[in-house]
Amino acid sequence: MYINTISHYFPSQVIGNEYFTQLNNLSTEWIAERTGIYERRKAGEGENTSTMAIAAVDLLLENIPYSKNEIDLIVGATYTPYDTIVTLAHAVQHHIQIPDIPVLSLSTACSSFLNAIEIVEGYFAMGKASKALVVVSDHNTAYYNEMDTVSGHLWGDGASALLISKERQTATDMVIKKLITGGAATSGKAVEAVVLRPNDKGVVMPFGRDVFQNACVYMPKVSQQVLQACGLTIDDLDYLIPHQANHRISLNVINTLGIPVEKLISNIQYLGNTGSAGCAIALSENRDKFKKGENIVITVFGGGYSYGAMLITI
Amino acid sequence: MYINTISHYFPSQVIGNEYFTQLNNLSTEWIAERTGIYERRKAGEGENTSTMAIAAVDLLLENIPYSKNEIDLIVGATYTPYDTIVTLAHAVQHHIQIPDIPVLSLSTACSSFLNAIEIVEGYFAMGKASKALVVVSDHNTAYYNEMDTVSGHLWGDGASALLISKERQTATDMVIKKLITGGAATSGKAVEAVVLRPNDKGVVMPFGRDVFQNACVYMPKVSQQVLQACGLTIDDLDYLIPHQANHRISLNVINTLGIPVEKLISNIQYLGNTGSAGCAIALSENRDKFKKGENIVITVFGGGYSYGAMLITI
Repeated sequence: MYINTISHYFPSQVIGNEYFTQLNNLSTEWIAERTGIYERRKAGEGENTSTMAIAAVDLLLENIPYSKNEIDLIVGATYTPYDTIVTLAHAVQHHIQIPDIPVLSLSTACSSFLNAIEIVEGYFAMGKASKALVVVSDHNTAYYNEMDTVSGHLWGDGASALLISKERQTATDMVIKKLITGGAATSGKAVEAVVLRPNDKGVVMPFGRDVFQNACVYMPKVSQQVLQACGLTIDDLDYLIPHQANHRISLNVINTLGIPVEKLISNIQYLGNTGSAGCAIALSENRDKFKKGENIVITVFGGGYSYGAMLITI
Repeated sequence: MYINTISHYFPSQVIGNEYFTQLNNLSTEWIAERTGIYERRKAGEGENTSTMAIAAVDLLLENIPYSKNEIDLIVGATYTPYDTIVTLAHAVQHHIQIPDIPVLSLSTACSSFLNAIEIVEGYFAMGKASKALVVVSDHNTAYYNEMDTVSGHLWGDGASALLISKERQTATDMVIKKLITGGAATSGKAVEAVVLRPNDKGVVMPFGRDVFQNACVYMPKVSQQVLQACGLTIDDLDYLIPHQANHRISLNVINTLGIPVEKLISNIQYLGNTGSAGCAIALSENRDKFKKGENIVITVFGGGYSYGAMLITI
């Protein structure tokens, strides 16, 4: 599989830590020390999961290597749906006006980005698609409680879009070498640590420490697995993009893997936890800095305890 | 692909049409004439999408032809999530305690059952799974407005579970011969006709006539496509199970296809519209009446305008 092109979108409204100082008496330093977050973006009036996905798609379509009409599959990923019937994938299909292709949206919480790409891999393997549009969008502030002093300050909003093809399309395509996903709902407090019940309290994280601990186990482990599956070692890795949940988790993961901080890519400092969109946005933001032959691992971990890793070679 | 076994669960609480007569002054006859519905089931206190899925899985596991520990993929389907982070697939993984297998949940609204099976087909094609557990569950009454005289009386709750394998497991396996899904969000009022926005009004259907008309076009068309793909004609069809949205839609579909009412399988009369679970429940309820060699088509159509058909041979 090949990533032909990638884009990202985040809302213009910036919410600094001082907002939560005023609201909840949490100091900028307290938040930054515990999470690495200084700012996050918040969707504006009229914006939602689907509009952000469409905004990312519009940016993507400005520069694609083939006609958009060749797209034959749309997969959406979100755990913060604007509409669970007219999902973000359906909204995008309507927007780009390509009829009669498979369209679906999924959630594995913050791991949804990699599960979406694995679904694409499956359609390619079946021969039912060859050029897929993946949209990842999370509108966390639609479901958070900003007064929640445990997790209200963590969340940001954002989206990303990618075109993925079965065969190489351009010399600058990024190559997906290996992708592994897994569920770990059998571990720890998987079914209660972080939840989003739309009819209840929205997104809450009563057992953040359990999320932290399991994330620090599963992300290094599955990162090693994708490298090993390709006959590579950690020394062959040029960049790691871990799920942007907490900068201390990211530092713990690179410490476990034994890689220097220069190889860590992060955007949590200025975007907060943008959910399943975080890693995709980071890949898009840093696209131009990657050099031919470099190896990048994206690794994710989410509530419900799904995890995954993807090895990309430039 | 082979369906090894299938189960269904619906809640014990029965809501007859007279409930809506008292509530909204809609007579039993008026509801029955327009929808075919006389009764529907409503989830009780403490029940939700995930508990219904687990109840269906428990019934399924009472009689399976191999160890549950051989399950290597779980796909959940719902548009009425209890939890979008700990999805029904994650809740089921936790319940059956099988670690480190891919787990995800998806929505294509009322078409989600067939998209879930297509995801399984993809994992089988990749060689990443060989025995999948599919759970389909919709808890419509968690998101409906019972005072809504347009659609409040349509909805029911229910769930189904299936084991699907890549290779034949038993002589009584049902064979999935062909599966086609598609998105039609480019048609009619696809992005506004029926919506479920958790932060807005829940499930509403402002353009039911547009849903009706498009359902009556897409379900016959895609049913013909799966038959043709297998070299069969409508005369080879023994039973049709259309999405259980409205009995008048079902009658319109068989009329268009030119098949007698004896070949139509329905449960909307006593279950209402159970969303993506409806066809799966119908397949499970009628499992014992199907005879070796019979051909069954399941066809679905949902909000956001996704559609699909699956040809099963007994």
